[in-house]
Amino acid sequence: MGDEVVLLDFWPSPFGLRVRIALALKGIKYEYKDEDLWNKSPLLLKMNPVHKKIPVLIHKGKPISESLIMVQYIDEVWKDESPLLPSDPYQRSQAMFWADFVDKKASSSVLSSILLCPLNFCNRMQIYGLGRKVCMTKGEEQETAKKELMECLKVLEGELGDKPYFGGENLGFVDVSLIPFYSRFYAYETCGNFSIEAECPTLVAWAKRCMEKESVFSTLPDQHKVYDFVLQLKKKLGIE
Amino acid sequence: MGDEVVLLDFWPSPFGLRVRIALALKGIKYEYKDEDLWNKSPLLLKMNPVHKKIPVLIHKGKPISESLIMVQYIDEVWKDESPLLPSDPYQRSQAMFWADFVDKKASSSVLSSILLCPLNFCNRMQIYGLGRKVCMTKGEEQETAKKELMECLKVLEGELGDKPYFGGENLGFVDVSLIPFYSRFYAYETCGNFSIEAECPTLVAWAKRCMEKESVFSTLPDQHKVYDFVLQLKKKLGIE
Repeated sequence: MGDEVVLLDFWPSPFGLRVRIALALKGIKYEYKDEDLWNKSPLLLKMNPVHKKIPVLIHKGKPISESLIMVQYIDEVWKDESPLLPSDPYQRSQAMFWADFVDKKASSSVLSSILLCPLNFCNRMQIYGLGRKVCMTKGEEQETAKKELMECLKVLEGELGDKPYFGGENLGFVDVSLIPFYSRFYAYETCGNFSIEAECPTLVAWAKRCMEKESVFSTLPDQHKVYDFVLQLKKKLGIE
Repeated sequence: MGDEVVLLDFWPSPFGLRVRIALALKGIKYEYKDEDLWNKSPLLLKMNPVHKKIPVLIHKGKPISESLIMVQYIDEVWKDESPLLPSDPYQRSQAMFWADFVDKKASSSVLSSILLCPLNFCNRMQIYGLGRKVCMTKGEEQETAKKELMECLKVLEGELGDKPYFGGENLGFVDVSLIPFYSRFYAYETCGNFSIEAECPTLVAWAKRCMEKESVFSTLPDQHKVYDFVLQLKKKLGIE
């Protein structure tokens, strides 16, 4: 076992990609194990018995799940190289807020407050879910998902402002949390027949800036390969 | 402003209660402002423009949102008194995992994996949502919610094991994240006509142990008052 680092993952997963970018940034060598999600390995079921989901990081034989928690763990254990979270508690809380926002965007409408819509459990959508809906649905459902996805990305663009990265001068926690979704932009745009760059040029410029970093471009899969994966998945699921 | 701490909250919110317990544990004085969620204050809309939701902690004039992030912030800023998160990175990651589990329980079924159910955005339910469904629905929907809520609580009971608290010998991050829901148990049980204690005696014993701590019993609202609130809410929403 020793200091061994193992990652259980599935190559197109944006959540797994976060962990791989963090490991690359820190220069950590690890063993990569790609899971067949239709036939999960006994190791995955043993290491994440609660959620049975990838990604799982195994360090010194002990598992860590949930991608943002994994990235934070990596940042704390290998703290000297490329720090991702700021050391100031307030700045840390803000980075965590925005990474959390990427995963679960609460509806910003006052009317759809949890109290007024007590049965609307779906009012917390995330970029992952919205993007998936853009790819997997049609008609009005797809149009709504496109609209909500763009709203979400515009809020993030507003937070980025004129900083080169969310982390300031360097890639930080929010950058690592968000950039994996860039590998899906071509799939979103092709399935949804729209241009993200036309509506969020600053955010796409940020993504391209991130892609110049070796930790990012050497990790993210090709956008066309991800699109092919989406097409295969739709076929497998009998969609369209 | 100075070192002033202000909490924007709504008294029955389990998320706000987390923050209030953390503040009580640390012995931090703060100004409490109860929000009317049907008529949110300009201060709330200004301090949490993204989600427009309580709770919001304002420290030295700067806002922090999302209850788990707020508790972590409080723990980092006032770190000497009653530490909540362990200092060891692995133990920290596990505490965060379980607090995250309280908020979003992914389906543990292999069949309902995100890949096999790409459109099932609701497969991540939380204790809050399930408990709400127990109170607000009837028939099969309510029965399913009861079953899922108990599954969720049993997983937590398993994690507690024979420790006095999730945090070990003292209240920790997971305890503070979970105990606010105890104030809703009477409402869940009365609306759902079942006994949580019968199925999860160890977890209820843990909750009663937590209730012996002044930071908890002086903060949690009376279970009957919460039940009355639920009844009023159902009436307001025209349910039943």
